[in-house]
Parts: sequence; C-alpha cells; structure tokens
Amino acid sequence: MTPQDAQDPQSERPGRIMAREMAEQPEVLRRILDTGAPTIHEIARRVAERRPRFVLLTARGTSDHAALYAKYLLEIRLGMPCGLASMSTITAYGAKPDLRDVLAVTVSQSGGSPDLVASTQAAREAGAITLAVTNNPDSPLAAVSEHHIDVLAGPERALPATKTYTASLLALYLFVERLGGSDGAAAASLPALAGDLLARQAEVKALAARYRFAERMVITSRGYGYPTAKEAALKLMETSYIPALAYSGADLLHGPLAMVDNISPVIAVVPDGRGGEALRPVLDRLRGRGADLVVIGPKAQVEQASAGFALPTDGVPEEVQPILEIIPLQLLAYEVTIARGQDPDAPRALAKVTETH
Amino acid sequence: MTPQDAQDPQSERPGRIMAREMAEQPEVLRRILDTGAPTIHEIARRVAERRPRFVLLTARGTSDHAALYAKYLLEIRLGMPCGLASMSTITAYGAKPDLRDVLAVTVSQSGGSPDLVASTQAAREAGAITLAVTNNPDSPLAAVSEHHIDVLAGPERALPATKTYTASLLALYLFVERLGGSDGAAAASLPALAGDLLARQAEVKALAARYRFAERMVITSRGYGYPTAKEAALKLMETSYIPALAYSGADLLHGPLAMVDNISPVIAVVPDGRGGEALRPVLDRLRGRGADLVVIGPKAQVEQASAGFALPTDGVPEEVQPILEIIPLQLLAYEVTIARGQDPDAPRALAKVTETH
Repeated sequence: MTPQDAQDPQSERPGRIMAREMAEQPEVLRRILDTGAPTIHEIARRVAERRPRFVLLTARGTSDHAALYAKYLLEIRLGMPCGLASMSTITAYGAKPDLRDVLAVTVSQSGGSPDLVASTQAAREAGAITLAVTNNPDSPLAAVSEHHIDVLAGPERALPATKTYTASLLALYLFVERLGGSDGAAAASLPALAGDLLARQAEVKALAARYRFAERMVITSRGYGYPTAKEAALKLMETSYIPALAYSGADLLHGPLAMVDNISPVIAVVPDGRGGEALRPVLDRLRGRGADLVVIGPKAQVEQASAGFALPTDGVPEEVQPILEIIPLQLLAYEVTIARGQDPDAPRALAKVTETH
Repeated sequence: MTPQDAQDPQSERPGRIMAREMAEQPEVLRRILDTGAPTIHEIARRVAERRPRFVLLTARGTSDHAALYAKYLLEIRLGMPCGLASMSTITAYGAKPDLRDVLAVTVSQSGGSPDLVASTQAAREAGAITLAVTNNPDSPLAAVSEHHIDVLAGPERALPATKTYTASLLALYLFVERLGGSDGAAAASLPALAGDLLARQAEVKALAARYRFAERMVITSRGYGYPTAKEAALKLMETSYIPALAYSGADLLHGPLAMVDNISPVIAVVPDGRGGEALRPVLDRLRGRGADLVVIGPKAQVEQASAGFALPTDGVPEEVQPILEIIPLQLLAYEVTIARGQDPDAPRALAKVTETH
C-alpha cells in the first residue's frame, strides 16, 4: 500500500488495485509506442535476417491468449505457420524436437515460471531462435532467451492481469508488423481510444447487472476476436468465479450449443471485419434459439442484440481491434465481481507467479 | 431404426444408440488392428519418404481432441513440432501460408464440413503433404486429400461421437508409430481391455449419482491425458448440458483454480506415467482446497481420492492409455444424462455434420 492509499478513505475498497491498473492502459500503450518501439523494431530486424519458417508460441493463462493473438497475426499477416506449444512434451516427457528454422516465442508477464524457462532453454538448445516477451527484463526467462521484448507495463499487483495483457498484444503487434516489413502505424490511435473506452465504465456497470445471478456464461468470437473471448472468459472466472466457457463460433456449433439456451447468457465479441462476417451465421443460430446475446462490437451489430457495448472501429483495422475490445470485458469482470460482493484484487487460491514445473 | 429395434421393447429407451455405439468399441479397435493397419502403415511409409519437418493438425469438436492426442504423440515420440491450425486464418482471412515440408493432417468423423475441405485444399495448394483421417472414404475431405486413413468405425448415428473418437486415436497412433519406424505393438491388448472397461458400467453408474445435481464441473489432466480431459468435458456438456471446464493441470493453477472449491466437483484424468507425475502437485493443491476429487487412473491414485475409477495400466504404455481412459468417461456422460432425465442420443441443437464455413 502506498502512503497515498493510506490517506485515501477509499483505499480499502475491493478491486482498487485492479481498477488502477486497468486505468493505466492508455499510458502503457503510449509508452510502448513512444519508447518501446525502436527496440522492438530492432529485434524484428534481427529475427527477420534469420528467416524463420515456423513459429512456436509458448505461454500460460492470460499470456496464452496474447500468444494466440500473435498466432493469428503471424498466420494472416505473414503467412507463417504457427503452433502453440504443449509445454509438458518438453518439461515432463523430455521431447527433443528439431527446431531449426523455428522462431520460439515465449510470453509471460512475470518471466518467472520455471516450466517456461525450462522449455525456452530447451528450444534454444534445439536450434530455435528464441524471443521472450515479458514485463520483467530482469527475469530468468529474459535471461535464457536470445531476444527479449519488455512490455513496459510497470509493476502489476492485482492478481487478474489487465495492463500486461494489452501491453503484450501491442508489443507483439509491433514485432510482427515489422517482421513483415510494415510500420504498424495503425496502432497510433490506440492510447486515445483506450482512454475513451475506460471513460464508459457506467455503461459496463449497467451490463454487469445482467450477470449478477448468472450461474454460467458462454463467450464466443471468431478470428482475431477469439483470443479476446478466451481472455474475457478467464478474467470473469478468476474474479467472479462464474464458469465462463469460451468457444470459437465454429466450435460452438459442434457440441456446446446444446448448453446454450435462455438460461445461459452469451457474450459475442464481434470483430469489425472478416472474423465478424464469419461469426454472423453463429449469431443467427443463437438468436434463433432465444439466447440472451450481448454483443461487444460495431454499433450496427450491437443494435441487433439484446444489449451490448459499441466499440470504436472506424479506421481501426481488424488486427488491432483486440487491443481495444478486451477493455470493456476487463471492466465487466470487475463490475460483475463487485456486484457479487467479492474482491477482484484477490481471487481465492491464486499466486501471481505460478510455480508449475 | 432397424427392424430389430422395432421388436425390442427397450427400443425407445433414451440413449440406446449411444449405448450401442459405445459397446462396439472393442470390435472397432480390433477391426483397425486386423484390417486397417496395413493401409495405415503404407501411408506412413509414403509420408516418411517425403521427410516432413512440421505437422499442422486441423479438426473441430471431438476430432480436435483426437488431433491433440496426435500432437502429443508426434512431439514426444518423434520430436516433430506441431501446431493446431486456426482454420479461420485460411477460410475467413485467406491467409496463404508457406507449407513446404509440412504434413497437414485433418481429422473429421464425417469428412463433410465445408471449412475443413476448404482449408485442406488450401494446404495442399500451399505445398503441404495432406492426410485426412475420417470415418467416410467417400467424403469430400477424403477426395481432396493426398492420403486418406479410414477409421473403419461403421456408421455413427448418436450425436455424441464415441466409437469414432477411440477409432481415430488408434488409427493416429498406428500412423505416428510407423512414421517413426515402430510397429505399434502396444496396441494389441486394447480391444480386450476396452471390453473389460465396458463391462464395468455399474461402477460408472454409481459415480454418476454424484453429478446428478452438479451445476458445473472441472476436468483436469496433463500430458497424454489432456486430450481425454477435453473430450470428457465436451461429452458431458453435449449430453447433460452441465458446463464442464477442461484445463491442463498447469493452466488450472493460472486462474481457474479460484473457481474450484467444495461446490465445484473435479475429475482428474491421471495417466500412469510422466503426465500423471506432473499432475501430482496439482492434485495436492486440489485436495488442500477440499475439492471433491474423482480420479480416473491407476488404482493407487484412485485410492487417495474421494472416489474414482481404476484403469488397467499394467503393461499399457502411457501413450496408448488415452484410447482406454475415455471409455469410463463416455459411460459417465451417458449415465449422468440418463440420471438427469435427458436423452444422450439427441442433444438439443446439434446436427451430426456441422456446416461451418
């Protein structure tokens, strides 16, 4: 607790740390654009010289969703086939993969999980170009990786990760764009737009009332919005403990749809672009089943749903929208948790650095 | 309905189709070993000649879990880096990946989903060696793929896939083992062991009573058992509509653990081998939180849990255990659904061939 907190009559209010860290996001995004970008561009240049043909991404929890976002970027923007690593194949089974021509990217807020350090070291020994993306340049993970990108988010103290998530997305976006020879200029408007979203907390609070008594939730999306759906589900679960199931729209039709009816609320993250178009038939199916459908997406899509939150997507390319669309969902996890009388800062059972081996 | 069904006084009983198809599994596994293996071995020989360096696996729903099993086999047994394809990058965004040296494996019971056909065709055009694993040699997917493995399960009519899942696992096991120059002899005992498991339905029925009023469930595992955890969760959801969340043990500690307490029952799939060892600290954590823990695994592990189902693992290598361990969980989904007064054969809202584009 800072001295300021001690004087603040609100200092004991639940969720104050998470609230403060969410509010820092515009500033963190600006810091990455202003002071982080040159290093990121230099690393991208050096990686590009090595001409990787495949990318393996390794992460857990929230960082796994940042890795999934990078997978979409790498596949769609650069045509590079990617895989998300099953870490236990190396750490538990001692697999010795041949990783020549492979870029191995490890994403971790703390850079401290022993299994991530071990698998990154193993990847480097197996011939991979290794890149760590963390919020701690002094971490063991940064030390074992050939390259390191600092996401510059400052210390994160609330257990639910928020600012390190959007910071990781932006850092990965700038890296992938430069790897493909682009400048990532589309990111310039993000700090201001993130600030606008944070100013609309009252709208989110109204939405949160809907989930005060929810016993489960389904969150769906497609394409670039899918990592957002997964991250929103994790955020809701780890703060409010509501079982929130994330599915790509296509997977939802392959089974879990049986579970969706008028007692299972659905949140759809609708990208403004091809992902949103591919999601349309799924939304029609959900509406046809009488699902309680809340849309986070472009205004026109929100208007067709039971309720929603309109995102500013004019002039924002689909590939950077994930950096914005998670923000109202972070706020939602926070507001639902407060409404249920719980403390978003301190979920039961969680430690900030998870010591899995 | 067959004429036999019409004469059978039990013919209208809920779940009769799923029950019949689960019961066919020993026979299907034997058929693959006796009549499918030579073709599988010949395809593996031809693929090996092309020396693929990376594998991209594409599937949805139950088949996605078979693909995940293949990913563990390929990474651990052969040291080949793998990725699970995000199909929308090709079908919605038109990504043009460079797939030289890549083996693209598509798994689909029906072989009929248009998006799988489109992405497999795109992979072939991008230079990949393509292999389809289906239960229908006359399917469009088999037609567009360079190689095709028929899983020989016979028509599957119940909406929840059961025999096509274990058949796909065995076919993929034989393929990967031969690709690595082994004979897959460890599979020889599977048909008899599967028969033994099916004979223990009464034990599963007793376990099912535990979940009669469950509002949610968590299923966890690690390593080779992780695809089983995901498939068990899907099976439970699509038959009983209980929200069942599957997590690798390591991911569970990164957030969702907050949701697990004495009102969220946990099923742990404990492989007898390194995956089970890696899961041990997670099980200790769960027991420490007072979780209701049911173990599907070796007898010694079951005895330390609240309840469980002991698997025959003596002389069964860890990499073939998934072909057995899903069987009591299929039976569990069936029995829980019957206990809740629903029909496992006909979940709401599902069509057998899902027409996602």
